[in-house]
Amino acid sequence: MKIRIHVSLKPGVLDPQGRAVHHALDGLGFAGVEDVRIGRLVELDVADGTSDDALTEMCEKLLANTVIENYRIEKVS
Amino acid sequence: MKIRIHVSLKPGVLDPQGRAVHHALDGLGFAGVEDVRIGRLVELDVADGTSDDALTEMCEKLLANTVIENYRIEKVS
Repeated sequence: MKIRIHVSLKPGVLDPQGRAVHHALDGLGFAGVEDVRIGRLVELDVADGTSDDALTEMCEKLLANTVIENYRIEKVS
Repeated sequence: MKIRIHVSLKPGVLDPQGRAVHHALDGLGFAGVEDVRIGRLVELDVADGTSDDALTEMCEKLLANTVIENYRIEKVS
C-alpha cells in the first residue's frame, strides 16, 4: 500500500528556506510569486493491513514535529 | 492561485534520508514498512495569470534537480 504524507510548516511559523527560494525566483525574473513555503513529502510503502492509527502514530512520533508542523496522510493505492 | 509542487527522487537514486527514517520506524516497532522515500513539497502562492509554462520553468530552473528528481505540479485553487 502506497502512502504519501505531506508535512508542512504551520501558518505563522517562519520558513527561511521558503524565503530563500522566493528570493531566488524573484532573482530569476519570475514575477507574481507571492509566497513560497517548503515542506516534506514522505512516501511510504507499507503492508496492506496497516491501520490508520499506525500511520497517525508514525507521523506523531517521528515524521512530523507537531509543535510547528501539520501533516496530511494520503493513500495512493 | 495556490500551487503545490511535489519533488521526489527518481527511482534508483539512493535516498539516505529515507533509509534513516525507515530504520527509525523499525526501531520504534512499526512493522510492515517496506520502503521510505523522502521528497520535497513546495507550496507556491502565485498571481492568477501565471502560465503552466512559467511554473514548469520554475521547476526546471530552480525547484527540482531534474538529473535526479522528478516533479509534479498540482493546482490547488
